[in-house]
Amino acid sequence: MSNIQDVARHAGVSTSTVSNVLNRRTDRMREGTLARVQAAIAALDFVPNRAARQLKTGHTPMLGLLVPSIANPMYGFIAREIEAAAQERHGFRVLLGNTYRDAQKEAGFFDDLLAHGVRGVVVVSSLADERHIESAARRGLVVVSYDRRASAPTGAGIDHISVDNAEAARLATQHLIEHGHTRLAFATVSGKTLSRSEKIGGFLGAARHAGLAANAARVVEARVASAYGDAEMADAGRTLAARLARGGRGAARPTAVVALNDMLALGLMAGFREAGLAVPADVSVIGMDDLFLAPLAEPALSSVRLPIAEMARIIVERVIARLADPGIAAAEFIFAPELVARRSVAPPRTKG
Amino acid sequence: MSNIQDVARHAGVSTSTVSNVLNRRTDRMREGTLARVQAAIAALDFVPNRAARQLKTGHTPMLGLLVPSIANPMYGFIAREIEAAAQERHGFRVLLGNTYRDAQKEAGFFDDLLAHGVRGVVVVSSLADERHIESAARRGLVVVSYDRRASAPTGAGIDHISVDNAEAARLATQHLIEHGHTRLAFATVSGKTLSRSEKIGGFLGAARHAGLAANAARVVEARVASAYGDAEMADAGRTLAARLARGGRGAARPTAVVALNDMLALGLMAGFREAGLAVPADVSVIGMDDLFLAPLAEPALSSVRLPIAEMARIIVERVIARLADPGIAAAEFIFAPELVARRSVAPPRTKG
Repeated sequence: MSNIQDVARHAGVSTSTVSNVLNRRTDRMREGTLARVQAAIAALDFVPNRAARQLKTGHTPMLGLLVPSIANPMYGFIAREIEAAAQERHGFRVLLGNTYRDAQKEAGFFDDLLAHGVRGVVVVSSLADERHIESAARRGLVVVSYDRRASAPTGAGIDHISVDNAEAARLATQHLIEHGHTRLAFATVSGKTLSRSEKIGGFLGAARHAGLAANAARVVEARVASAYGDAEMADAGRTLAARLARGGRGAARPTAVVALNDMLALGLMAGFREAGLAVPADVSVIGMDDLFLAPLAEPALSSVRLPIAEMARIIVERVIARLADPGIAAAEFIFAPELVARRSVAPPRTKG
Repeated sequence: MSNIQDVARHAGVSTSTVSNVLNRRTDRMREGTLARVQAAIAALDFVPNRAARQLKTGHTPMLGLLVPSIANPMYGFIAREIEAAAQERHGFRVLLGNTYRDAQKEAGFFDDLLAHGVRGVVVVSSLADERHIESAARRGLVVVSYDRRASAPTGAGIDHISVDNAEAARLATQHLIEHGHTRLAFATVSGKTLSRSEKIGGFLGAARHAGLAANAARVVEARVASAYGDAEMADAGRTLAARLARGGRGAARPTAVVALNDMLALGLMAGFREAGLAVPADVSVIGMDDLFLAPLAEPALSSVRLPIAEMARIIVERVIARLADPGIAAAEFIFAPELVARRSVAPPRTKG
């Protein structure tokens, strides 16, 4: 493999001139010189060694991307948008890690990023406890967190980009109430994340605002060993549907359910079917996320859309900007969700 | 940030002793020495600079992973399994690229891997034309290709790991024939990949084997601008369902359809519903892949399962083994698929 000395010799210039070309410092270079260096690079099939450059510049064009599980279609979607924005707009590659919401796995990934000279990282849907992320920021990583609100003043140096989760749940709940439902449930899973708490808050607030009694807006939770994702989330929905269909706890069966997310909603719909209940005739279901799977469901799933592509663009731009200028202060960005009505919500058979 | 000299000074040893600890050459080291170095590393919060080590060893513990689109649940699933195997078993991180089956994007990713000192790459579902991958192998990348058969003798230095796609389509087709169907269609999309051709071959072979006339086993194809994935694949299924429901071309409507994959099958089911046809009463549908979404569909989708976790483990083991020993010859691994019968296939209303 040829090196920078070979290129310099071939072009008849100094190695520092080649280095200037490689680092795009060509403003004051004569055109002929630039052309000779470029021709030499092409002729020798020279590949600049980024490891060597990185030692000098302390910078490598890579971002870390931590997701609970890339097998979850929601995280796959946002990962594709982030990778596309990083690569196509900024020439950055993406180093991927699945963390299953394990703080130790997340911390291990930060260690590896630092060891590889990667200085920017996007953390998707992390735990409620953010201390290990703050520690990574103190060790020099530029961190952008997606899907959680800032828990501390942004002095911790972490950007937070999220959807207004309380508003998303409020929109979903309000949609059910407008259809005449007065016995509601919010279906979720065990394991605390901030976005889950915010959604529950939005659900309860909307029910209260509509004058529903406290026992008319229940929160039901499936215990799960690990719910970072895909099959587990749908299974939780199935379990909850069976439980809700049986009624129990003296409470009448809810006529409409808000699901924590679309995967849980798809599981709920399958579970209600298995219990002999028709959606939406017997029970309405609404999800959140508006995955591309929602319109494929039978019935097509009503949901709340997040502006994923737009958020991914901002996420990448924040990382790149703060890598270039460490003086930029951390900030919080909250995006508005939007209701998407399909066919899984209808008026209840008999009112309340 | 502290460096290797700081650690050596703190522990009262030479830098080469510290280097031995970092590179796990500790067999003949006295326990007290090892403990002192480890304590110094902890006390100074020392992070070994892999960029510097990489310059010496010419090796970085990273794999490239190229997928058409990580937003496609099938690729998300295999990516998670590959990342887990690489990270948990071998301490390798994964550098992700979405290529939308664009040869130029794939080639650009190989360039970046080489520039970053990454020497191993997994290529998922690439194009029929493999020349750019062979060129990457000649430039020193260890390449493992998933989801395509070797097109040349394995002398090109590329490992190929795939499912027996012809057998997968044969199993699906045979399942329909066993239910009494004699008018079949295979639903696919435009754009040539080897696995698609193999599946079509398996479908036609099974129909021929059952004595069906050539016009009783049609291949229908949706023209798509880019079908690497998720929403596009489901949309293609919808389009094809509408076309099949209308009949046309003088041919009677098929009573059962084999879909190229589960995403296309889910789109077909939605499209048949929209056209007023019931699955499986009016038309049976079977997919391939057995995504975790298949049992959630209404009706639950019959499919053909691929041993993804097992294949991912072999993929990673091959890359790691060939990185360690370039003398290992490239090979081809073909895994057997397995039928998973659910409720989307039933006997036709009237025979033939």
